Amino acid sequence: MIRAARARIGRNLRRTPLLSSPALDAIAGRRVLVKAECLQVTGSFKARGGWSAVSAIPEDVRARGVIAFSSGNHAQGVAHAAREHGIPAVILMPIDAPQAKIDNTRALGAEVVPFDRDTDDRDAMGAALAEARGLTLIKPFDDPLVIAGQGTLGLELAEQAAEAGVTRAEVLVCCGGGGLSSGVALALEAEAPGLRVRPAEPEGFDDVARSLAAGEIRRNDRLSGSICDAIVTPQPGALTFPILKRLCGPGLAVSDDEALRAMALAFRHLRVVIEPGGAVALAAALFRPEQVDGDAVIAVATGGNVDAALYARALETLA
Amino acid sequence: MIRAARARIGRNLRRTPLLSSPALDAIAGRRVLVKAECLQVTGSFKARGGWSAVSAIPEDVRARGVIAFSSGNHAQGVAHAAREHGIPAVILMPIDAPQAKIDNTRALGAEVVPFDRDTDDRDAMGAALAEARGLTLIKPFDDPLVIAGQGTLGLELAEQAAEAGVTRAEVLVCCGGGGLSSGVALALEAEAPGLRVRPAEPEGFDDVARSLAAGEIRRNDRLSGSICDAIVTPQPGALTFPILKRLCGPGLAVSDDEALRAMALAFRHLRVVIEPGGAVALAAALFRPEQVDGDAVIAVATGGNVDAALYARALETLA
Repeated sequence: MIRAARARIGRNLRRTPLLSSPALDAIAGRRVLVKAECLQVTGSFKARGGWSAVSAIPEDVRARGVIAFSSGNHAQGVAHAAREHGIPAVILMPIDAPQAKIDNTRALGAEVVPFDRDTDDRDAMGAALAEARGLTLIKPFDDPLVIAGQGTLGLELAEQAAEAGVTRAEVLVCCGGGGLSSGVALALEAEAPGLRVRPAEPEGFDDVARSLAAGEIRRNDRLSGSICDAIVTPQPGALTFPILKRLCGPGLAVSDDEALRAMALAFRHLRVVIEPGGAVALAAALFRPEQVDGDAVIAVATGGNVDAALYARALETLA
Repeated sequence: MIRAARARIGRNLRRTPLLSSPALDAIAGRRVLVKAECLQVTGSFKARGGWSAVSAIPEDVRARGVIAFSSGNHAQGVAHAAREHGIPAVILMPIDAPQAKIDNTRALGAEVVPFDRDTDDRDAMGAALAEARGLTLIKPFDDPLVIAGQGTLGLELAEQAAEAGVTRAEVLVCCGGGGLSSGVALALEAEAPGLRVRPAEPEGFDDVARSLAAGEIRRNDRLSGSICDAIVTPQPGALTFPILKRLCGPGLAVSDDEALRAMALAFRHLRVVIEPGGAVALAAALFRPEQVDGDAVIAVATGGNVDAALYARALETLA
């Protein structure tokens, strides 16, 4: 399914580069390779899952449109795929999503419907809208087509790591519901078995790490209050968790301040823009070296959609 | 010579991506393709010329080391090439160069010697040091090997533009002494004759545009006072100007504020960090559309080494 998703995506999305810097290597105490997925179309890996899912819908059904709920990156991924396929997209977005993500989603031609992530049941809202308009729901992570789409990043990574001479390493992946982590883990299992995924999360919202440690699904106590909003989800998915459990190493968690510092170091040494939720893997690589094994570590920088004010706050950590 | 430089560079440097965003297309009123050379090793295209020149020195001479004068990007390019070749590098840097560039140059193992760009004669200082220590001087632009190295960007661009379906377009290149503009122009003349270079400069420091208009070399009135310090040079080079005159279209100039706005739009829509001097070409593409011809325009984002405080100022233009 991952290879089929890659074939459907074709050249509609980007093969994002694998970047590095001697300065980051020095901080981490080992070679650091950063998969700069923030340079993906729409600014995050979600364009992969969105394209994979939208392109697989039978044409007559697809014509009625798609619906998704998202704090922003999945929204843009689905909106982009819908626009490129010439179909309507309705996106339910939390009212506290970064303004840049709301603006970008609207700019991609989607209809944005706001919801409150503490009080509204987004699943019920989405299902009702989907039924009323005949829209196909594109789930953010717990869908085989979405997981397969995210897994295309793993196929690229297997090739790029080999080109860089890295065949054994841990691959730190910013993790919300586990769609990317599970897709990449499946791709690497097939194409680069020496590379092992380890999910990275914000401290206090490390449901995946706790679930992996417990061997069964654990929930987050709360769903707001992190600057890493893009990767805060209630719990790992029913489809993604068994894959994570089978293939991934233990989860890692970093503080908001560490995520901000990783953003600033990526600004200075890689010249790419990473959002807080997209920086937790790099932060873990840089600031949790004792929890990582090997001569090299790979961090996936999953997205780069961040409001200017929050980015300026990250840059202040360089002073 | 450009093809030979590419062969010497091999896989030591990056093939930087060609990025785009519908939002930038909408602002410019035509398709905008951005060659994200800010993602190059050392954060600028200068790594190309540095590698080309250092790698071409006979080994016994090269072993004594190299010397360069630079506001920062050429410094890092030469320092990087020297370190990778295992030889010493001495870099003369202006006292008002951005701290990040000075720090990065030192981090690359180079010895930094400061000079005042208004009162010191950097050429004389460099020549004296070179003679005393047996160092080979690597000029910043007016050297065939350096021009050839920068021209390797043009070879990539010819391939990438063709992949993007663009065979006729103007290529806006941030221009100081003209090393990159002339190298790219030569490469495109051979490989993509439908692509034509147009130099882009900061207003008030548009010596190349005025020289092209006059048909002979014109000097800048002053050499400090622009935030685009990386591309402020006294005048076009003796070697570069005849190439620019033969192959380039008229020069373009943008204000400091427009450069800052282009940096901010690249942050939001491309997720890459561009320095002021590296943003003038994109600024011209976005804010001088009436001076550009064609359905598509290519802008080279030449570098991404910028202090955090100045970058924060650029982000304020989004508010």
